[in-house]
Amino acid sequence: MADKDLLAFGQHLKELRLAQGLSQEQLGLIAELDRTYISGIERGVRNVSLSNIFRLARALDVPASALFESE
Amino acid sequence: MADKDLLAFGQHLKELRLAQGLSQEQLGLIAELDRTYISGIERGVRNVSLSNIFRLARALDVPASALFESE
Repeated sequence: MADKDLLAFGQHLKELRLAQGLSQEQLGLIAELDRTYISGIERGVRNVSLSNIFRLARALDVPASALFESE
Repeated sequence: MADKDLLAFGQHLKELRLAQGLSQEQLGLIAELDRTYISGIERGVRNVSLSNIFRLARALDVPASALFESE
């Protein structure tokens, strides 16, 4: 079941990924995370850990703070 | 063992907590997280989950992005 916070994070991640023209598989390869895990994050069903947040940020070449929508 | 990213996150959290004059116990009570868990985050030995990142941000009344140091 998708949590509101996790879903907002996932939707924002998806926007950033698409803005860079990357598929879930491509992002997964760069971040060394499974494509199905990326998919789960974007659907708000994975409670991503801090270390994977940093891994995704590096893969997208943005600061970790940029993965969170400004509120 | 403390990971560099987790430690940076924890040290930044500690700065934000102290800037608001809160003890680890007080932050834990507001965030509904155990004081020893807060302590572990600040020492970089806990790989905080996304939902707990949002919980800490709300307890400190800051956006989640503010928990990450600008890089």
